[in-house]
This record gives sequence, structure tokens and C-alpha cells, in this order.
Amino acid sequence: MKKISVFLLLASFLINVPLTLADEGMWTFDNPPLKQWKERYNFEPSAEWLEKVRLASVRLNDGGSGSFVSSEGLLITNQHVASGQLTKLSTKERDLIKNGFYAPTRADELKTADLEVNMLVSYENVTERVQSAVKAGATDKDANAQRRAAISVIEKESTDKTGLKSEVISLYNGGEYWLYRNKKFTDVRVVFAPEEQAAFFGGDYDNFTFPRHDLDITILRVYENGQPAKTPQYLKWSETGPKDEEFVIATGYPGSTARLLTVAQLAYQRDFGNPLQKQVWTSRLDALEEYSKRGTEQARQASGAIRSFNNSLKRLTGQQDGLMNPRMFAKKEAEEKALKEGLAKNSALEKELAPAWKQISDAYTELPKYANRIAFSNLSASRLGTIASSLVRYGDEIKKPNNERYPEFGDARLESFKANLLSPAPIYPEMEEFLLTAWLEEAKKTLGVNDPFIKAAIGDAEVSEVVKRAVNETKLKDIAERKALLDGGADAIAKSTDPMVTLARRVEPIIRELRAWNEEKILSVDARAGEKIAKARFAVYGRTIAPDANFNLRITFGKVKGYEEDTTLVPYKTTFFGLYDRAESFGEKPPYDLPARYKERRDRLNLSTPLNFVYSADTIGGMSGSPVINRNAEFVGINFDSNIQKLSNRYWYIEEEEGSRAVAVHSAGILEALRKLYDAENLANELTGK
Amino acid sequence: MKKISVFLLLASFLINVPLTLADEGMWTFDNPPLKQWKERYNFEPSAEWLEKVRLASVRLNDGGSGSFVSSEGLLITNQHVASGQLTKLSTKERDLIKNGFYAPTRADELKTADLEVNMLVSYENVTERVQSAVKAGATDKDANAQRRAAISVIEKESTDKTGLKSEVISLYNGGEYWLYRNKKFTDVRVVFAPEEQAAFFGGDYDNFTFPRHDLDITILRVYENGQPAKTPQYLKWSETGPKDEEFVIATGYPGSTARLLTVAQLAYQRDFGNPLQKQVWTSRLDALEEYSKRGTEQARQASGAIRSFNNSLKRLTGQQDGLMNPRMFAKKEAEEKALKEGLAKNSALEKELAPAWKQISDAYTELPKYANRIAFSNLSASRLGTIASSLVRYGDEIKKPNNERYPEFGDARLESFKANLLSPAPIYPEMEEFLLTAWLEEAKKTLGVNDPFIKAAIGDAEVSEVVKRAVNETKLKDIAERKALLDGGADAIAKSTDPMVTLARRVEPIIRELRAWNEEKILSVDARAGEKIAKARFAVYGRTIAPDANFNLRITFGKVKGYEEDTTLVPYKTTFFGLYDRAESFGEKPPYDLPARYKERRDRLNLSTPLNFVYSADTIGGMSGSPVINRNAEFVGINFDSNIQKLSNRYWYIEEEEGSRAVAVHSAGILEALRKLYDAENLANELTGK
Repeated sequence: MKKISVFLLLASFLINVPLTLADEGMWTFDNPPLKQWKERYNFEPSAEWLEKVRLASVRLNDGGSGSFVSSEGLLITNQHVASGQLTKLSTKERDLIKNGFYAPTRADELKTADLEVNMLVSYENVTERVQSAVKAGATDKDANAQRRAAISVIEKESTDKTGLKSEVISLYNGGEYWLYRNKKFTDVRVVFAPEEQAAFFGGDYDNFTFPRHDLDITILRVYENGQPAKTPQYLKWSETGPKDEEFVIATGYPGSTARLLTVAQLAYQRDFGNPLQKQVWTSRLDALEEYSKRGTEQARQASGAIRSFNNSLKRLTGQQDGLMNPRMFAKKEAEEKALKEGLAKNSALEKELAPAWKQISDAYTELPKYANRIAFSNLSASRLGTIASSLVRYGDEIKKPNNERYPEFGDARLESFKANLLSPAPIYPEMEEFLLTAWLEEAKKTLGVNDPFIKAAIGDAEVSEVVKRAVNETKLKDIAERKALLDGGADAIAKSTDPMVTLARRVEPIIRELRAWNEEKILSVDARAGEKIAKARFAVYGRTIAPDANFNLRITFGKVKGYEEDTTLVPYKTTFFGLYDRAESFGEKPPYDLPARYKERRDRLNLSTPLNFVYSADTIGGMSGSPVINRNAEFVGINFDSNIQKLSNRYWYIEEEEGSRAVAVHSAGILEALRKLYDAENLANELTGK
Repeated sequence: MKKISVFLLLASFLINVPLTLADEGMWTFDNPPLKQWKERYNFEPSAEWLEKVRLASVRLNDGGSGSFVSSEGLLITNQHVASGQLTKLSTKERDLIKNGFYAPTRADELKTADLEVNMLVSYENVTERVQSAVKAGATDKDANAQRRAAISVIEKESTDKTGLKSEVISLYNGGEYWLYRNKKFTDVRVVFAPEEQAAFFGGDYDNFTFPRHDLDITILRVYENGQPAKTPQYLKWSETGPKDEEFVIATGYPGSTARLLTVAQLAYQRDFGNPLQKQVWTSRLDALEEYSKRGTEQARQASGAIRSFNNSLKRLTGQQDGLMNPRMFAKKEAEEKALKEGLAKNSALEKELAPAWKQISDAYTELPKYANRIAFSNLSASRLGTIASSLVRYGDEIKKPNNERYPEFGDARLESFKANLLSPAPIYPEMEEFLLTAWLEEAKKTLGVNDPFIKAAIGDAEVSEVVKRAVNETKLKDIAERKALLDGGADAIAKSTDPMVTLARRVEPIIRELRAWNEEKILSVDARAGEKIAKARFAVYGRTIAPDANFNLRITFGKVKGYEEDTTLVPYKTTFFGLYDRAESFGEKPPYDLPARYKERRDRLNLSTPLNFVYSADTIGGMSGSPVINRNAEFVGINFDSNIQKLSNRYWYIEEEEGSRAVAVHSAGILEALRKLYDAENLANELTGK
């Protein structure tokens, strides 16, 4: 009770005026920015409006967002969000990535291997229950365990009571805790996907740029009990799409922002975290590219991951450029200084909360020593390695009481964990061997031969020998084998002689040790001190700042609008004219080549039809596939990217005036393509309710 | 003899290797970069090739370049080069700027008011004659006068002997002097001009950018004795235009580069010259914009000048950004240091030449005190003021012997001077009054009421009174009146009571005094010290560096090629698809609106036809209208702009890898537009020889 009452008390005497800028913020549905909407856009949604939009906006557990666009389960997301599933459904003979796919009838729809879709059905503030679980005088480490135990109990209670997937999430770096209950769909089928060349026209070059010309969509359908799911809360399709300067909303599951981090945490990212991340991703990308040189089929297997790492690296580079910009960094320093000064106006609070900054900076001075080990001590470059590690970890955790386990093995989350482990997605042993070898070689080079992880993984042997045997002889490629180990439980897993499982078992103690170190020295400090800083921020600014994104449902807003760049103007939209111009201007040299149908059927198109557009809402990775919605809750487009001006918005909001924009596919362009290029008249009719 | 022999001697023991980079250099025809062409592009033009291209490449004395593209005098330049003449031919009822123009038969061709076209017929090195005219021990000022006298004699001799317009030009800041003989065409008629909205689609925003979509052309025809001139040395039209990566040449009359300036001269530009220029142009632009708000007709009158000042200011901003870039400025400092070090290897030469740098930097420390006065003490914001000042100056100069006059009043140049003064171009009194008032107000604000120019111009009166009377009562609007004064000579002009003439007469002593100061303290030092630095440069690098541009014929080269920008690719060309995309993407909001025929006749076009392209040649302002030529001396496009990456190339060459590009209209796009949009079949046939 004490802690909450402090918060309530504080809320009543805000020390400073709110800081929120322009169209800033990825807001939770419990605290939508009603004031900004009303003042800036004269928009006052009803509770029904908000509920409808929330229930229509779903999370794809592969990492991305989507929305329901028909009452019979049609769900639209990006091709690049669905591409993992499309790859899993592809074979050498049937390549859904290269050639796209369309199911003219429901019987033709293709069931995905392991896609899970979540809909946020209800939520509840459990801050008091979680925070009050921490006993007076507890160390950071103990406090962490006490909070985690409380969370496990809350999640299990809810799951038992409602049957819904129940997760407690933290907002404001531990300033609040909320119980989110999700309805889960696990039978998800593919209805339509364009050729990747249409979805990703311009490739990595045009990624994070605008003007843009991508049909980056995939249309799925969720099923329940073998029938299309009833989804009465869906977004009506707007056939005209948004106009210039129109107010729009985007809803979805932004993955991660770091705007509330302290300067010390940001400096760590800049000086160590990001460069290390770059090394990790670059080495994985290099291995994939090397592998894909082996042949067409190998290139097909690797292409999705290559696209994804290219994307991540381009984004990381933009983010790091932002952090390296002294002007921007100085702004963060000034922000922190202002918060501290605001806090200093209440000396009792200052005494309680102000030490948090130093606690964090002290903790982060230790991190660089461990960061390489934490980054490289794992088998996750390989799917078989990931499966083996998950099984071994499951075996160790499942023996413990629910509230003492790693959170991902809590009772409430086990079902999703198992479904993922038993996914029928294809495994390519040649690729597995290549990537795991490359990964362990890079780890060895970085950590040295005497590193505990390297010694445990390969001992005195050659990396290639160990990996070859593990990949070739493991039976984990077989789902039944995985299931047998899962059903056999801790004992069966502990006794398995499968060489991938034994490899995972050898390295598991090292991984656990590093995780324990990280939790004790970093994460628990982050949580405890983060909670204090959150309180300071509430005290100074109230609840007028949105929490950092963490892959939970958010609502953002802005307007459709072009911008200035390099002394000229960038328009708010592109058209099919622009697609053909760009293809012709490069003489169709890849990645500017067009699928055959685009050339054959060009004259069918109304080339003035808008294809992509930009808008000023505050978005970030994870909102790929988010619906863009007008004030009538109609679907006017689908978010799929942002421009380069926006990349460093991981660390701070970038104002509209600086040209920061989200990029979407236009609802009219989608219809034009479905009808004129893909002969998908049935689908277009279902979307438009005809 | 002494000076030349030193030069020849030096050429034989070059101290360092040549510095020329990549496709650098605006070369004179006496010294084309044959070595680079052969090595980089395997291109070895014959003497005939070079002569043909030289004779086809002409200067438009309004400031720009052009080329002959038929044997019967057809000449192509940019719409923005011809727009001054198009404006002069326009009236409220017949607006050639807004609506364009096409003469289907020769009888329809419209004679321009005062356009003069020059063709470089022959040239001769007169360095020895000019330099040896300077007597031993002469002061800088006397040396200047002695050189100038020698030049007047050379020009007059040549004019008398050949009947050609003969001008001595200086290259390498006085390192060389050349006599250029030009054939002059003064009967120039308009055949075709597009609507400015097509020539300048995207307006000032898209100026200096790429991708670009402008039909920036005007086609003229030169006449002699009332008949189309015979122009056997013309460029054959290429119907396909250039391919990606193709080698191309551009020829034309680049106005001004400042790459051989010393660091002291550049620092002056950066700290004083450019900011002052910006103030002057901004104040003139502001006045024009204010005036054009008065109504449609006023806007029409002002539009050409507004476009021109916008262009100049955008360019100046880019140039100044370059100078303000410490990395680039440091490069110039390093260049100067290297040149001095190279020179130091020959101590006799060093003793003779090295003091030049200090002489220049000493001189330039004085300039800021006078710069404002020099910039503002004139009447040239008004055409009537310019005419009056020219007359008054003519009256004073014509009394002197030829070789003591200001160069622009030398016998060899008098004919062009008079033609210009008697031009029938329209004068708009309302605009004259508005602009001259604004100019004198700005001058008064900048220089103060006690400044000699201000006192002479307006005394104790109000600016508006003085200007009102001068503009309203002057008879200089009448060509016959101007001719009478010209014919009356010094005496008639001195006695004129025309209030614009008396205004000009009052300020003339101030202008002369400032000019004298500038010539003595700055220009003669520039010339004398510049000559020394040129010698130092010849000694160290030979003649492998091109001279700075000064509005004389040059030949440049490079290749057609796209580039990288902001992490994506810019293609080497655009197509008509792109034009329609950009118009649609902005909802045709000006400056992205299209002329009516572009919409009505869209379906006639092959939209894949290339419209604009970029290439890597070293160009600068003044080369607007330059032909882009392939190795077969065919016309493949017309230069009309450069991208923003190239703007600071006034001060240094910017390498191709940095994305610096010239922008041209594609020869195929021109034909497509003429045929399909403008029904100019006759013209297209003449161009293609059909």
C-alpha cells in the first residue's frame, strides 16, 4: 500500500509541466492520449471505438503486428512479418517467397507451421501486488526473485481462472505492472502473399527510405475448430485510403524503445552494446551469405534470414548514428538533468530516489567485461541448437515450483513454449551445420580458446568436427523425437545421448552462470533503480509520458504528411507510376526488377493509384504489420517501415519537422493490385464487404 | 621573352606528379585532356572532331551555353537560359513563359529582342605580348594599366583585321592570356519553348536535386541576312540517347570557379564575400516577391528574375556550406601547403614567387572595409538605372584613347555594348520604381545616411521621391531617346537633364572611386600575385591542371552514372513515369502541377522514355544549355543543372564517388515530348534529319 499511496500523492502535485511533444508516444490502451487527440485533432473516440480497435489489433508471435479486416478471420500483416512462415511452407518446388501465393477458395488456404496470433482481451493493473511482494531490506537480487515469484502466482491464477494466456508485463522500467490476458489463435492459414520482389522492391537499398514502392502485405486467416474464426471486431476497409494531412492512428506491438534509459545506460549502448550487437549480426549475416553462394536452393533457404539481418543492421546503424550525434546525446543529458532538478524540488523524494542514477552507472561499469561472453555463449545461430538448449533448460526448470522458474517456463507460458518446440517448420541440416560452425568459430575467435563456453562446447576438438557430428546425428530434426523428450521430462532429457542435446547440456551451466550474473548485477539493478526513476518521472511529469515499448499493444497517432529533405520536398504518397519509373530508371537491374505479372498486366492498372504513403505517428520495429486507421476505425493502410530520419527514435522521439516518418502500404493500392495484378477478386470482395 | 622562357624551362622539370583527379577539369580547347580520355575511356578524338564540337558549341550572351543541332541554324539551349528573352517577347496577352511557344513554319519564328550568340572561331596565345608589356619595376597598379593597354591594342588589331569580335581573356589567374575570336549572331529567333511548368517542374524545390523531371529546353534558330544561318558544323541528334555508364563530353561556357584561389581569398569569400552576396540577392529577391504580390501581370513581369535569384541563392547556400565545412577547407589548406612545399624545392623560383601569397592576404585584409560600399553603390537593380549609368560611363570613357578605357568600352566591344543599350526589350515602369526604391532603401540601411553614394543619390530627399521622379520622367524608356544620347556622345550625355541620367551622373564619381580603389588594391594584386602563383603551379604540376572557369569555352567529360545517397541508390535516369508519379504524389499541388497537355495527351506517350539523366562531368553555372555529346559527336542530351552534392565544386572538384552529378535532359525524352505532346513533328524531323 505504501508505494502506491506515494504515487497517488505525487500525481496530485506535479512539479513541472508535461514534456510530451507533438505526436509523441506509443500509448497503452489504459492511458490513451485523449487530451492530445482532442486538442490537436478534435478526435474523441468512444470506449467502443477503443475496444473495437484493440480487439482488431493482434500480435504475431513471430514478431510483428496485424489486424482483422473481415468478420471471418481475415488478418493482414506484412509479407516480411509472415516471410518466416512462408519460408517454412516453401519447398524447392513450391517457393512462396519467390512466387507468392493466392488461395481463391478457403480449401486452398495453407496452414502455417507454427504461427501464433494473440489478441489482448483484457488487462488489469497489478503494480501494487508485484511491488508489495518485495520485502523491506531485500537486496536487489532478492527483490527481483520476490517480484518474479509474485508475477508467476498472478499469471497462474489468471490462466487457471480464465483459460486465457496471461502475462504480467512491466511498464515504465518497473514503475507499473499489468496483467495482460490474451486470446490465442494457433490455426493460421495463408490466403495471399505477393512475390517477395513486389513486397520488397528495391531490397535493402530502399529499406528505411521513402519514396517507396512496396506491396509488403500478406493476408492470413485465423481458424478455430477447423472453421474460420468469428472476428466481429474487425476494421472496415477504406477503398479510398487516407488523404494528405489526414489524422491517423496506428495500433500494434512495438518491440523496444529505450527512451527512458539513463545517460549511463545509453552511453553503454553507444560504446559497447551497439558495436557488439553489430559484430554478432554481421557475423551471422556473413555466414548466411556465404552459405547462400552454394546454390539456388541454399540461397532460397537463407534468403529470409539474410533480409532480416540486413534490415536489423541498417536499423542498428541508424540508431548508432543517432547516439553518436553529440547534439542528440547532449539533449538526453539535458533531459536527465531537468528531471533531477525537478526531483530536487522535493527533498524527501530526492533522498529516496536520486541515488538510482548512480546505482545504474555503477552497475554498468561492470558490464563491458561480461558483454562478449553473454553475447556469444549460446547456440541460437542454429535451430537445432536452439531446440536442444530449450529442452535442456526446460528439463532443469520444470523440476522447480512454478514461481521459482525462469519466467518463460512459468505454467502460464508452457503451452506456447511447447507448441514452438514441436513446430513442423523445416530444418535444413546443411544450413544448420554451416551456420553453427561459423557461429562457434566467431565465438572462439572473440572469446578465445580458454573461454569456459568454448571449452565446454568443443573442448580440444575442431569446431567443425563437433558441429558435424551434432547436426548429422541428432534426432531432433524429428518432431516425434522432440515430443518424446518433452514428455519424458527432466529425467529423459538429462539422460539423452543425442549429440546436439549433449552439446547443449555441456554449455548450459555456462549460460546459466552468465544469466545469473546478468540478472543479479544488471537486470535487478535496472529494475530496482528503474522503478525509482519511474517514480521520479511520475512525480515531476505525471503519467503524461508514454512507457517504453516492450512488444505489448500500443496505440500511436499522427497525420499523413510529406516532408522536406535535402532542400526539396518528399510527397506524402507514391503511385504505381513511381514503381514503374524506378524499375525503368535502373533498367530493371535487381533489386529493381519487377515480377513478370507487373509487366504483363501493367496496362490494366490505373497507374495513379496510391501505392505507399508516409505518416507522422511514433512507431518502431514490431509495429510492422500494424493497421493504419482513420477516425472512423477504418483500415486505410498497413505500416511496414520507417524512413531513415526516424531510426534513432529508439532513443528519443524525433519530431515531425525533422522528417521522421512511418511508411505504409495504401489501402487503395492493395485493392488495385489484388484485382488487376493478382486476379484476387474474391479476396478483394471479402475485404470490401462485397 | 624572359617570362615565357622561364615557363618553358619550368615545364621541362616538373617537380611533382600531376594532381588531376578522375573526371576533373573544365579544359580549354587548346589543351584538352587527351591523356585522361585515352587512359580512362579509350577515346582519341581527331582534330576534326574537336573542331566540329567547338564550332557547334556557342555562348548565349545572356549567360549560358547552347549548341547547333541542324545545318540550318537550329540551336538548342535551356528554357531557363532563354527565359529572359522569352519574357521580353511576352505581353499580358501572349505569355511565352506560361504557355510556351511553337513555330510550325519558319515564318512563325519570333525574333528575340537582344540575344547575341557567339561562336569561337579561332584562338591564339598572347601571353608573351601581354606580360611583356609590363615595364620593369612597375607598381601593381601601373602593371595593370600596362597590361590592359596591351590587351586593347591586341583586341583592336584583331577586330580590324578579321571583323570578328576579338577578346583577350586571362587563364590561370593571369598565368596565360589568349586572344579569342568569335563570330557573332544577332538575329536569333524562337522556334520552340515548353511551358515553364514543364521546363521547371518542381520549381525551386527540385532545383539542384535528382531524380528530376524537367523539359528544360528552348530551341532557337540563328539567322544571317534574313535567312537561316548555314551551320554545317552541328551535332547530329541521337534518337536513343546515352546508356548507363556511357562516356560523354559536355562543352560550354562555365561562368566561374574559384579553385585556384589562395586560402586567404577563400577565407574572405567564406567570411565576407558570400554573406554579403547573400544579403544583396536576398534583398533583391524580397523586393521582386513583394512586387509580384500586386497582381497577375506584376507576377508575370517579375517571375523570371525571381526564378533566377532563387536559383542563385540556393547555389550560393550550397557553396557556402562547402566553405563552412572544416574538412573541405582543411583540404584547401593542405593543397596550398603542398604547392608551397613543391615550390620550395627550387629556391630561386621560391624567392621570386612565394611572396605572392602574403601580398594577397595583405590586400584582402583591407577589402571588408570597402565591400559593402562596392556591393551597394550602383543602380543596377533597375534596368533604367543600368541604362543611365552605362550611358554616363560611356560618355566619360569614349573621350579617352582606346587603350586607356575601361575594358568594356574598348573599340572591339563597343558594338555589343550599343546593341545591348538599344535593346527593344520591354521596360515596366511600375516594377522599375518598386525595385529601385527597395534597392536604395536597402543600400541606405546598410551604408547609412552619411555614405557618399547615398548622399549623392538622394541627398536630403526621400528615396521614394527621388526614384518616383527619375522613373516617371525619364525618357530612356524610349529607344530613340537612348540612341540620340548615344549618337550625341559625351557632350550630349553630360548635358542631359533627364532625371535618371542626372541621378546616374551624381553617383558616377562614387562608383568610379570605388572601382579605382578595388582595381588598385585588390584586382591588380590578384593579377600580379595570381600570375606568380600560376607560375608556381606550372612549375610544380605543369599544365595538367585546368584553369579556373571564366565564361569561356571549355570541354569537360565523364560518364552517365547513378549514385548512392542516404543509404539507397539514385538511378542514372528518370522516365515520364516518374514525372506523372511526382505530380500525382503531390496531388498536383504547385510546383508539382502539370500543363494541361501533359494530362490530355498522357496516353500518347511511351512512359518508359527517359526524361532526364545524370553524368559525372565537371560542370558549373554557365554550362546551362551545354550539349552532352557521345564519342561520335552526337547530341545525347542537354545540361541544365547539377545536384546539391556538386554545389561547392566552385571551390574544389568533388569526386564522382561523393555523388556529385550534372543533370541533363535526355535526347530521346525531348523527341518524345516534341512529337507526342507538342505536335512539333516538323521540328522533330529537322532535328533527326528526316
